[in-house]
Amino acid sequence: MINDLQDILSVNIRGMKRSAIRELLKYLNQPGLISFSGGFPAPQSFPVEELKGIIAEVMENEPYYALQYGTTEGDNLLRKQLADRYKKFGIDVNMDNIIITTASQQALDLIAKSFIDRGDTVIVGLPSYLGALSAFNSYGADMIGIPMDDEGEIPEVMEDEIKKAIARGKKPKFIYVIPDFQNPAGMTMSEKRRKEIIDIAHRYDILIVEDSPYRELRYEGENQRTLYELDGTQQVVLLGTFSKIFCPGFRIGWVMGHPEVLDKVVIGKQATDLCTPPFTQRIAARYMERGYLDPKIAEICNMYKSKQKVMLESLEEFMPEEFTWTKPQGGLFLMATGPEWIDTDALLLDCIKEQNVAYVAGTSFFCNGKGQNTMRLNFSYESEENNREGCRRLGTFFKKVIAEKS
Amino acid sequence: MINDLQDILSVNIRGMKRSAIRELLKYLNQPGLISFSGGFPAPQSFPVEELKGIIAEVMENEPYYALQYGTTEGDNLLRKQLADRYKKFGIDVNMDNIIITTASQQALDLIAKSFIDRGDTVIVGLPSYLGALSAFNSYGADMIGIPMDDEGEIPEVMEDEIKKAIARGKKPKFIYVIPDFQNPAGMTMSEKRRKEIIDIAHRYDILIVEDSPYRELRYEGENQRTLYELDGTQQVVLLGTFSKIFCPGFRIGWVMGHPEVLDKVVIGKQATDLCTPPFTQRIAARYMERGYLDPKIAEICNMYKSKQKVMLESLEEFMPEEFTWTKPQGGLFLMATGPEWIDTDALLLDCIKEQNVAYVAGTSFFCNGKGQNTMRLNFSYESEENNREGCRRLGTFFKKVIAEKS
Repeated sequence: MINDLQDILSVNIRGMKRSAIRELLKYLNQPGLISFSGGFPAPQSFPVEELKGIIAEVMENEPYYALQYGTTEGDNLLRKQLADRYKKFGIDVNMDNIIITTASQQALDLIAKSFIDRGDTVIVGLPSYLGALSAFNSYGADMIGIPMDDEGEIPEVMEDEIKKAIARGKKPKFIYVIPDFQNPAGMTMSEKRRKEIIDIAHRYDILIVEDSPYRELRYEGENQRTLYELDGTQQVVLLGTFSKIFCPGFRIGWVMGHPEVLDKVVIGKQATDLCTPPFTQRIAARYMERGYLDPKIAEICNMYKSKQKVMLESLEEFMPEEFTWTKPQGGLFLMATGPEWIDTDALLLDCIKEQNVAYVAGTSFFCNGKGQNTMRLNFSYESEENNREGCRRLGTFFKKVIAEKS
Repeated sequence: MINDLQDILSVNIRGMKRSAIRELLKYLNQPGLISFSGGFPAPQSFPVEELKGIIAEVMENEPYYALQYGTTEGDNLLRKQLADRYKKFGIDVNMDNIIITTASQQALDLIAKSFIDRGDTVIVGLPSYLGALSAFNSYGADMIGIPMDDEGEIPEVMEDEIKKAIARGKKPKFIYVIPDFQNPAGMTMSEKRRKEIIDIAHRYDILIVEDSPYRELRYEGENQRTLYELDGTQQVVLLGTFSKIFCPGFRIGWVMGHPEVLDKVVIGKQATDLCTPPFTQRIAARYMERGYLDPKIAEICNMYKSKQKVMLESLEEFMPEEFTWTKPQGGLFLMATGPEWIDTDALLLDCIKEQNVAYVAGTSFFCNGKGQNTMRLNFSYESEENNREGCRRLGTFFKKVIAEKS
């Protein structure tokens, strides 16, 4: 083994640590643990029976295609199915506007690889998805966090920060938003807010990266149009994924955008993994072709709506009154906020050890290191019974913490 | 769409172009084309029947595991199967020395991400695998090419170049080698040569990256021990893949090395794709567990040995006498060399259009831009009949090129 491993690491990797969430996976095997961490879909939502038939057919009819290398852009049948589905929803796209990635995380990595040099600025929410922060950080991005109100990032602050960045010669490379059921804060942008952010992007000629993993998981209220659609000029790059509406184990996501932007992403992807597994892509394409996706999404929405309801009611019942939490209209997560002095990061291991329940500490989502009194709670993975029991445990734990303080 | 796309690209992506090989994939659908390009395994080598049974069992017995997210390190059963197999060959490793990647290309990407800052030097062969050059290039590596003799990179030149790099404050981050059936040059390092290169790495405290995709595909001669084994101190990182001995469509590779090095690779992987598809990993693990891999490799070796023989005989029969080519003891490729004035890059499209046969131009493999009179020929993908017919077409094409010149 070499002697100076630390010294030879790239500057970007030297500055990174293991993701808090990924590290928590280790505790998921602890007997009886109730996990509100991670962003795991409910295993019951996986279309196992449908897939058995589809996979058998793919192995019978097209195994030599599915087991061979594929193009970097992705399986054409899958790209077409995805484009047709967006068209059905009134969005004007075709296959050339879509490439397949090894799930959304790779899309985030490739967007970062395409645009970020060390020290470049990007705009993100306060808070924002930690996997995105991690991908941007791995290329040395300087992240500018924009505070949020009930409708998302505050446009006036965003514009002000963009002006300041431009003034110091660091015009942001892109604006990263999760407009539907934001992870972790839960809010959904109104159409007005979406348009305000698009206006800013046009005014300063900046790309928007619209991360859209949860959009179809809406349990109440009305769908908002995507920024991609509202913009209409392909200045928006939309990231989609099957991880929450089909299954994460296939690792399939996509990037929708202007072909010139996609061309750069493809060049990066060639050097990164050549292609996403043609095997899982072809199975997913046949699954869509068969019309299984939409009824499955409706089924998942029913399941998660009910799980969310149980969690909201249980938090109400068990959490100390010093806590508040969001009530998102969809998605997989709530965000809970405690008194200012609470440090969820420092308390997490105690919470797991004492009460066998896990959350994600909020600081992971704040590029400015704040949010130490917040935590993200996932309601999709555990059963309704466990959602209730987990909230009871959380409540017991934090009541004790508060009692000890006073 | 934004106005200044070129201006906002990262410096690394700005400098990259689409890979010549990936671009050639577009021509693979041309009717009647015989492709000696790419590194495609023979579809007939895919274990379709065995997989049908294994997949049905995975979907019956463990679908909720296989369709869910997995750990970044990879499926433990697969890591254990791989470690046990190396142990069987006398190499002292365990599961903690192995992580799974989204095939070898991701391993190359993550090694580059872990160690390369723009302008850092790395040692590669002249020629070397273009996917590796592309991965290193995508992080801005300054590649130092080492000329090769019949046994691989020449140690004296390598040491000299390392000294010069150190003298200018740019000690190479690692030495990248493909010791078995080198891609594209075909030679296999003797044990003596392997030890010489390990000695250099120890003397200057430099990591060795041993890329080992073809090692098990040996058609004659005796196995050489891996650098990983000969070194014995885990200063070598070995990259393995199922793409050539099982199927590329699953996108499964692995990195074997010191746990401290793997830890850095895992941190990078978390930000890159979270995990390789648990679905294909679990199928591969069950496939290995069932003992299917070794007999399949023996079968592939028989098939490719015969395909290689046909290609060697056909080149002898059809190519102009001005050409020479390598006769590797294994792997998937030959490298052919024409007269100095031949430019295979400039001639490739004519060759495809006139004779409907494709190769990869040699320049893609030379980090110093040389090799314009060389080409890489794959003999694994096409049938024996096509290997013969393709060589006939190549011969016709290059005889015409030579006749026109004189």
